[in-house]
Amino acid sequence: MEGNFKHITPIQIRFNDIDHLGHVNNNAYFAYYDLGKERYIIDVLGVDFATGKVLPVVAHITASFLEPIFYGEDINVLTRVSHLGNKSFTLDQQAVNVKTGHVLCECSTVMVCLDVESKQSVAIPETYRKAIETYEGLA
Amino acid sequence: MEGNFKHITPIQIRFNDIDHLGHVNNNAYFAYYDLGKERYIIDVLGVDFATGKVLPVVAHITASFLEPIFYGEDINVLTRVSHLGNKSFTLDQQAVNVKTGHVLCECSTVMVCLDVESKQSVAIPETYRKAIETYEGLA
Amino acid sequence: MEGNFKHITPIQIRFNDIDHLGHVNNNAYFAYYDLGKERYIIDVLGVDFATGKVLPVVAHITASFLEPIFYGEDINVLTRVSHLGNKSFTLDQQAVNVKTGHVLCECSTVMVCLDVESKQSVAIPETYRKAIETYEGLA
Amino acid sequence: MEGNFKHITPIQIRFNDIDHLGHVNNNAYFAYYDLGKERYIIDVLGVDFATGKVLPVVAHITASFLEPIFYGEDINVLTRVSHLGNKSFTLDQQAVNVKTGHVLCECSTVMVCLDVESKQSVAIPETYRKAIETYEGLA
Repeated sequence: MEGNFKHITPIQIRFNDIDHLGHVNNNAYFAYYDLGKERYIIDVLGVDFATGKVLPVVAHITASFLEPIFYGEDINVLTRVSHLGNKSFTLDQQAVNVKTGHVLCECSTVMVCLDVESKQSVAIPETYRKAIETYEGLA
Repeated sequence: MEGNFKHITPIQIRFNDIDHLGHVNNNAYFAYYDLGKERYIIDVLGVDFATGKVLPVVAHITASFLEPIFYGEDINVLTRVSHLGNKSFTLDQQAVNVKTGHVLCECSTVMVCLDVESKQSVAIPETYRKAIETYEGLA
Repeated sequence: MEGNFKHITPIQIRFNDIDHLGHVNNNAYFAYYDLGKERYIIDVLGVDFATGKVLPVVAHITASFLEPIFYGEDINVLTRVSHLGNKSFTLDQQAVNVKTGHVLCECSTVMVCLDVESKQSVAIPETYRKAIETYEGLA
Repeated sequence: MEGNFKHITPIQIRFNDIDHLGHVNNNAYFAYYDLGKERYIIDVLGVDFATGKVLPVVAHITASFLEPIFYGEDINVLTRVSHLGNKSFTLDQQAVNVKTGHVLCECSTVMVCLDVESKQSVAIPETYRKAIETYEGLA
């Protein structure tokens, strides 16, 4: 997962994210990635989750757990769009230790644009596409 | 918290309920109690959460943590209504080790009846009140 | 719950904290309060959770849910110690909307000092007691 | 993901698994899969998580979200081992609606055997390998 990430979300780790082995439970990583996705969709696509008529939803997730996250670590989630399809786009994400810069986990998500009313997948709205292309320099 | 409990909900403990001290994190107890509340409201009050026009919501919770719950324990949540007010009722609950019968945690919740549309508190619907009185022998 | 709170923990709300009614699920509040407790214990008592020999654990919780928390709200958890006993102390907490200053939920927790090795309750260590008294002006 | 699944874990859906769109939040699926993994590892491999010296840990996850899970649905998680490597094995899982038989989500996980003390990856213990081969008819 090479290349530049511009979008950074600092993560507030919760006590109950830690499992009995003393590190962050795998499940919590997906909540962290969600925080990054959410902020990206709000910040870059300009989506309002409460009123948006087309919302990107998760269709496919791939994650590689490279190193454990320990209690007390400062973690950032980096997020970018690496691919724009017709109805879907691919979000790459990394969980990074702020101090060491180590990439602790990588995640790639295919998100499909869903029409909230019809519950059908639809083409990525032009405003979203333009916003992503501009932000990521994909055009 | 004396008296009889008739309503029993077996709990499926999740791996990520366990914190780094090796026992169930306090937060998870409230999810367990919610499972009991939910089943009680469906089973006894006959409420359908998807279509119900008046839903009981949590206004006040008191919980005493008596003994830790360890991974692998079989836990039941016992639930009953101990008091019926005008707009609110009190639910008593216990988390019990199935094998030993030990009460590990006790919880008392004041639930207020909310009109889903107006978001206002309303009197306990007569059907709920009757159902509870009959089930608990409160009448 | 009158009086001054000096200790403030900003909360990062997660997408999956929101339930199908569109507001923060009751369970998530307790995770927020835990973030406040944890920071207080680290910041004020100077406890290191990984190496501390005496840790405060939750014995009793009382919470009043005053107003719902909606997605996108900025929430702070305020924390203070209101009472120091022999083996236990009482932590008062409020969840506050940062913009409006509204108190959305109040929580009071009795925490008992536990010797990690013996698993027995013990007197509040003098260093903790002094630190709390000084911080809260309780002496 | 063709083939037979012998191992079935019924899932207890929690109220706070449901997000504001009214279906199970993606994160909760991974808790469901964990329940399946955990049971499989206990039931088939005979591992005791509290005392086991070699534990399988998650290295890589791939999940496809095919259909939403709604509140009130009965869900089973099916689990099997589809591949045995040297230090790692692949677990395939499906979340299935009990009534309709629909596969709602598929997940494939590479699990690496970790020596709990040295924190190093090690070869799959022979007892685990034999147990899996026998159970799955892989030999």
